Amino acid sequence: MPSVTVWNEYIHEREDDAVAEVYPDGIHAAIAAALDERGHETRTATLEEPEHGLTEAVLDDTDVLLWWGHIAHDEVDDSVVDRVVERVTEGMGLIVLHSAHASKPFTRLLGTPCDLTWREGDERERLWITDPGHAIVDGLGESIVIEETETYGEPFGIPEPDSLVFTSWFEGGEVFRSGCCYRRGRGKVFYFRPGHETYPIYHRDDIQQVLDNAVRWAAPSEGADAHGGNRNVDPPEST
Amino acid sequence: MPSVTVWNEYIHEREDDAVAEVYPDGIHAAIAAALDERGHETRTATLEEPEHGLTEAVLDDTDVLLWWGHIAHDEVDDSVVDRVVERVTEGMGLIVLHSAHASKPFTRLLGTPCDLTWREGDERERLWITDPGHAIVDGLGESIVIEETETYGEPFGIPEPDSLVFTSWFEGGEVFRSGCCYRRGRGKVFYFRPGHETYPIYHRDDIQQVLDNAVRWAAPSEGADAHGGNRNVDPPEST
Amino acid sequence: MPSVTVWNEYIHEREDDAVAEVYPDGIHAAIAAALDERGHETRTATLEEPEHGLTEAVLDDTDVLLWWGHIAHDEVDDSVVDRVVERVTEGMGLIVLHSAHASKPFTRLLGTPCDLTWREGDERERLWITDPGHAIVDGLGESIVIEETETYGEPFGIPEPDSLVFTSWFEGGEVFRSGCCYRRGRGKVFYFRPGHETYPIYHRDDIQQVLDNAVRWAAPSEGADAHGGNRNVDPPEST
Amino acid sequence: MPSVTVWNEYIHEREDDAVAEVYPDGIHAAIAAALDERGHETRTATLEEPEHGLTEAVLDDTDVLLWWGHIAHDEVDDSVVDRVVERVTEGMGLIVLHSAHASKPFTRLLGTPCDLTWREGDERERLWITDPGHAIVDGLGESIVIEETETYGEPFGIPEPDSLVFTSWFEGGEVFRSGCCYRRGRGKVFYFRPGHETYPIYHRDDIQQVLDNAVRWAAPSEGADAHGGNRNVDPPEST
Repeated sequence: MPSVTVWNEYIHEREDDAVAEVYPDGIHAAIAAALDERGHETRTATLEEPEHGLTEAVLDDTDVLLWWGHIAHDEVDDSVVDRVVERVTEGMGLIVLHSAHASKPFTRLLGTPCDLTWREGDERERLWITDPGHAIVDGLGESIVIEETETYGEPFGIPEPDSLVFTSWFEGGEVFRSGCCYRRGRGKVFYFRPGHETYPIYHRDDIQQVLDNAVRWAAPSEGADAHGGNRNVDPPEST
Repeated sequence: MPSVTVWNEYIHEREDDAVAEVYPDGIHAAIAAALDERGHETRTATLEEPEHGLTEAVLDDTDVLLWWGHIAHDEVDDSVVDRVVERVTEGMGLIVLHSAHASKPFTRLLGTPCDLTWREGDERERLWITDPGHAIVDGLGESIVIEETETYGEPFGIPEPDSLVFTSWFEGGEVFRSGCCYRRGRGKVFYFRPGHETYPIYHRDDIQQVLDNAVRWAAPSEGADAHGGNRNVDPPEST
Repeated sequence: MPSVTVWNEYIHEREDDAVAEVYPDGIHAAIAAALDERGHETRTATLEEPEHGLTEAVLDDTDVLLWWGHIAHDEVDDSVVDRVVERVTEGMGLIVLHSAHASKPFTRLLGTPCDLTWREGDERERLWITDPGHAIVDGLGESIVIEETETYGEPFGIPEPDSLVFTSWFEGGEVFRSGCCYRRGRGKVFYFRPGHETYPIYHRDDIQQVLDNAVRWAAPSEGADAHGGNRNVDPPEST
Repeated sequence: MPSVTVWNEYIHEREDDAVAEVYPDGIHAAIAAALDERGHETRTATLEEPEHGLTEAVLDDTDVLLWWGHIAHDEVDDSVVDRVVERVTEGMGLIVLHSAHASKPFTRLLGTPCDLTWREGDERERLWITDPGHAIVDGLGESIVIEETETYGEPFGIPEPDSLVFTSWFEGGEVFRSGCCYRRGRGKVFYFRPGHETYPIYHRDDIQQVLDNAVRWAAPSEGADAHGGNRNVDPPEST
């Protein structure tokens, strides 16, 4: 099973009672517990830890990193972001959650602003599965309904996904590409929209199943011993 | 300006008074008139004509073919379909409209069933633009609203589009990938959802503008004089 | 482990002594033995068997189908091709080998002629890995060298691959996209160039490893219980 | 016609007599003259100018930016890179030449290291056209041969291109994806390999034709008035 690190900026939960009620130990703890229950070896890391908890040693031992951030994207140190981005291109999977669409690792790997429109209206969301054969939706039905959530809207400022796994419908009139797969170097990247801090979305079984599936999908394969690296080479033997 | 042929099975309009009221001379005539007004050289062709109006001569003189069909997909002769498909791979643009998602040329070029769910519920549709820099949406706003239309729903059984230009929201709860771009050989293919026969959708200025843009986008470029063709070749000169 | 069926037209090996020397029991037997050794449950099927050995029952029990054909593409019955194509869109993996670029299942699923240029010149080929993190190249080095083989050349008349895993260099001056991944419906498709009938290429360990990797990659995942099917639907509960 | 700016670090030509002989006024001047002759309105900009010659005013008046750099990528100011990247996502085309594969704007927009292997061996290169219907190869034959050039090799550390237009064969045994198209936001990006400073490659008519074609392809279209921008929105009128 992949070794998983769940990263969270962990601010809302400590500063806002309403959020603390939903996630008393933080969003990271809730997600890590869910993945642990499903058999993954998990650890957590947060913004306030030294090097945000993402030391070389931690990342070297991480197959898949989950990332939740919202109000403190700018406080994430660029040297840590460099390390995360480099590890992804070397093979580490990255799962980017909800408001982390605007996080440094995601925007750096995608090369675009990844901006969107949003509204806090307690609207119903229906995530339709637009790629029913994808491993990330193993075991799901045709859609996931979330009764009350924040609304995101298009245009979502991302490059065309390699696979579009979920597309959301919102009661208030919007649509959104809610599940987007990319590859960057040897690493797989999955953006998954659900999960605002004031709703108990990460406690849901179907959402946890998607995260579990996504971790398995994003785990690195061995790959080939083939490297670029801007190195000067001799001609291949016997060309 | 590209030379355009608008093909229509042209059955509903002759058999159903309600449809005839909306499109007295057929959907093809309405679309052709709109494109003609916008400066394109247009002709039409229908199912009942010899070779469905799509002779070698007509296709050789067609830069972009628009295709509308619904209840008579199976009546389209395979030899004509072969000809259309071959011309697309040679460079002719193809714009596939609404219920022609299940037409022979489209399913043949995409390689999948292109099936979907549907409902006739007079629901409101909002086509969100998910690729605002694309030439097909030149001059539009952020969405197109159609007050009453047939509903289509995911999963839409298509390969991942090269570009997803429109995603529809429907009042009744569905989403749909309503504007999808592909390339097949030298030809460009655009699927565009709006346009059920009982609604006056092709009379709308915004829809006509999309069709006009799509024709310009799908028109072939000259390309290179480079060909496969399963031919035996000598080594390139001086390799 | 996936259940694998290896299909071969099985003509060259019975009619040409030079080929029979390389593959005495047929290319299919050599490939099946190699996959069997690597732990897959394998069976074979050939053109001359009833329904070409690809009955409903066989396909229903096949997770991944490998396809080798060359001089008898046209003799493959369309009803069997329909069945294969349908099974792929439902999830069965398909691995298309060498001259099967022009086979009916591959061209039907891709929607283009898949033509190319070729030369029988006993030239050296080097397959460079252009996607080193892909599961299909697990355990390989930076390239595979084949000392003598048939040459294929661009342009290869295929849609842009989802992933381009191998690109070949040929002594005589050509390049070729030799490892191409696609998805069609729920099924994964991999085209892999090596393997002309007069060279012992399928006896090589590295080539067998690619086939083993490709089978694992192409095996279906469970996916979601979400279906199109051109069916009329009620609005989703509580939209 | 698009308004073009050709950017060059402009160091080799001033410091190395051999380079100065090939490009006495700099690579930028040679390219700008070629594009000017083909009808484009051109200007140039270089590293040593204030803001590297890429002021807000210059970029606001640039439809397509060409970028050549090699030994001074790190000297390009990040604030200028930010401006270039932002303009690309807003629609400006970017054509990245040869050793600028490692430039800041390109790696920032692609999100990967874009590294490769290389060798200075005066080898013959043949650029095969792998996408013969693409507008970038209008008017070309089946390949472009460069008698002596620097060699680049795979793996090229880039995301899968949207379209792979050229693939190079090198005498010494390598292949390389030499013409790669991307879209980032509203902007089109084209990487084109040929053009080492010590070879007169930009003086060639066929190479100039590719640059001319690429400029036309990369020029922005009007697009839609649809914007994300992480803004809070009201529900759309009548949803």
